[in-house]
Amino acid sequence: MRTTTTIAETRAFLDGARAGGATVGLVPTLGSLHGGHTSLMARAAADCDVVAVSVFVNPLQFGVGEDFAAYPRDVDADAEVVSRSGVDLLFVPSVEEMYPEPVRTTVSVSGLTTRLEGSSRPSHFAGVATVLAKLWNIVGPCRAYFGEKDWQQLAVVRRLAADLSFPVEVVACPTVREPDGLAMASRNAYLDPAERAAATVLHRALLAGVAAVEAGERDPAQVRATMAAVVGTEPLAELDYAEVVDATTLDPVDPLTGELRLLAAVGLGRARLIDNVGVLAD
Amino acid sequence: MRTTTTIAETRAFLDGARAGGATVGLVPTLGSLHGGHTSLMARAAADCDVVAVSVFVNPLQFGVGEDFAAYPRDVDADAEVVSRSGVDLLFVPSVEEMYPEPVRTTVSVSGLTTRLEGSSRPSHFAGVATVLAKLWNIVGPCRAYFGEKDWQQLAVVRRLAADLSFPVEVVACPTVREPDGLAMASRNAYLDPAERAAATVLHRALLAGVAAVEAGERDPAQVRATMAAVVGTEPLAELDYAEVVDATTLDPVDPLTGELRLLAAVGLGRARLIDNVGVLAD
Repeated sequence: MRTTTTIAETRAFLDGARAGGATVGLVPTLGSLHGGHTSLMARAAADCDVVAVSVFVNPLQFGVGEDFAAYPRDVDADAEVVSRSGVDLLFVPSVEEMYPEPVRTTVSVSGLTTRLEGSSRPSHFAGVATVLAKLWNIVGPCRAYFGEKDWQQLAVVRRLAADLSFPVEVVACPTVREPDGLAMASRNAYLDPAERAAATVLHRALLAGVAAVEAGERDPAQVRATMAAVVGTEPLAELDYAEVVDATTLDPVDPLTGELRLLAAVGLGRARLIDNVGVLAD
Repeated sequence: MRTTTTIAETRAFLDGARAGGATVGLVPTLGSLHGGHTSLMARAAADCDVVAVSVFVNPLQFGVGEDFAAYPRDVDADAEVVSRSGVDLLFVPSVEEMYPEPVRTTVSVSGLTTRLEGSSRPSHFAGVATVLAKLWNIVGPCRAYFGEKDWQQLAVVRRLAADLSFPVEVVACPTVREPDGLAMASRNAYLDPAERAAATVLHRALLAGVAAVEAGERDPAQVRATMAAVVGTEPLAELDYAEVVDATTLDPVDPLTGELRLLAAVGLGRARLIDNVGVLAD
């Protein structure tokens, strides 16, 4: 496995691979790699001739007062995980390499980004879209792999790729969960044992919402209340939102019909965790 | 010469050319091609193995009340010009091909885009940056040719390419002028004979500003006043702005020093014309 820290080396390696006829898969990450990431790498390795993983804690996608400085970083552990995952290139740029001067260019996606995560994190998705546009320009034509855990991000990324005709195929991969249902996430590292035990409430709340829809509930307010009630049973968990929306547009649906997505966010000590599940209301 | 109307054909043609080892030059235009455009095509043909010209009147870069509907369009005349200019590919997409659904993704460049043209046209440069990001993604790695007549656009385009690491080399080409000094521009077609005669005031004002700097004037207000006074001699011309700024950052400079750019915009009947010239103050 090759490790690069510069844009030029990365581009040269992947342009060379494509020139030799190889297809390229990209797994863009913030590092602190876990089973969710390795599932993306495994899928990329199955689909593509050459797999690149980027590890970059992108300051643009952290808001004021968020955990940019504290975000878990362990380059050696990440390199070890990547080296065991059939990856050909690990790209670990510094902030100075990615943003040698203050970035004046911003890529934003309207509509999809104001509600849900966007309510709490108003500049988050512009930071994500901007760094992805840059990563895609560095990596070149590829398939890019994203986890469904970040469902709203996935919708934004798909729209970004389509609107600007990036030569990138966005591939969504299922959320990977711990045995007790907690979605794998780098920020789970923030949880102390009591919070870790309490964290299962997020997935349990979503499953309760799904059960309500499957039992015939078509009032979104009732489904939201069902999810909120489950979160309310856990004293350590603070509900940010629990919503049910159209799975593709993320718009409200009332009465509930079609492909739906239930999404929720809770605070648990220092951590803010998100999760989502799908359900069909026909 | 090949003419394409779809993104897929265009990408296939140019990917094929690059796969065969060819370098690609791109001249992005709004059509209504004139001597300024043909100078870009000639430069691209001299530099690159394959030259692509895009003709697309991009609605995103026209503001409310601007001349999107009236903007001169003549596809046959443009095709004739292009076919005589050593061009290999003419890409003429429809609005529906470029924007099959309402565009939610916007690329914006801060700082450079609020003053000068940005004051009169607040959404203009975001429209330019968004369509260029899309065109570059369609065309792929290339040299892209822009005229210095749109100096502020050139600064925005360079920043866009650098910030997002597009695999694009931005090449600036000198403004092409009519024998009486008027910069060639598609909107010159709006001028009636009296306005056409009056239009030379724009370049004359800029040259008066340059002469003032070369004579030792270092007060930007005096240089602005010199340029405004020249425009004021022409009853048909309405001054929008006449400024002197740092040539690279477009920031104000006081006292004047270094590489400067003098930029002005005037209204003349239906037309709004812009021009600029450079001068060194050492």
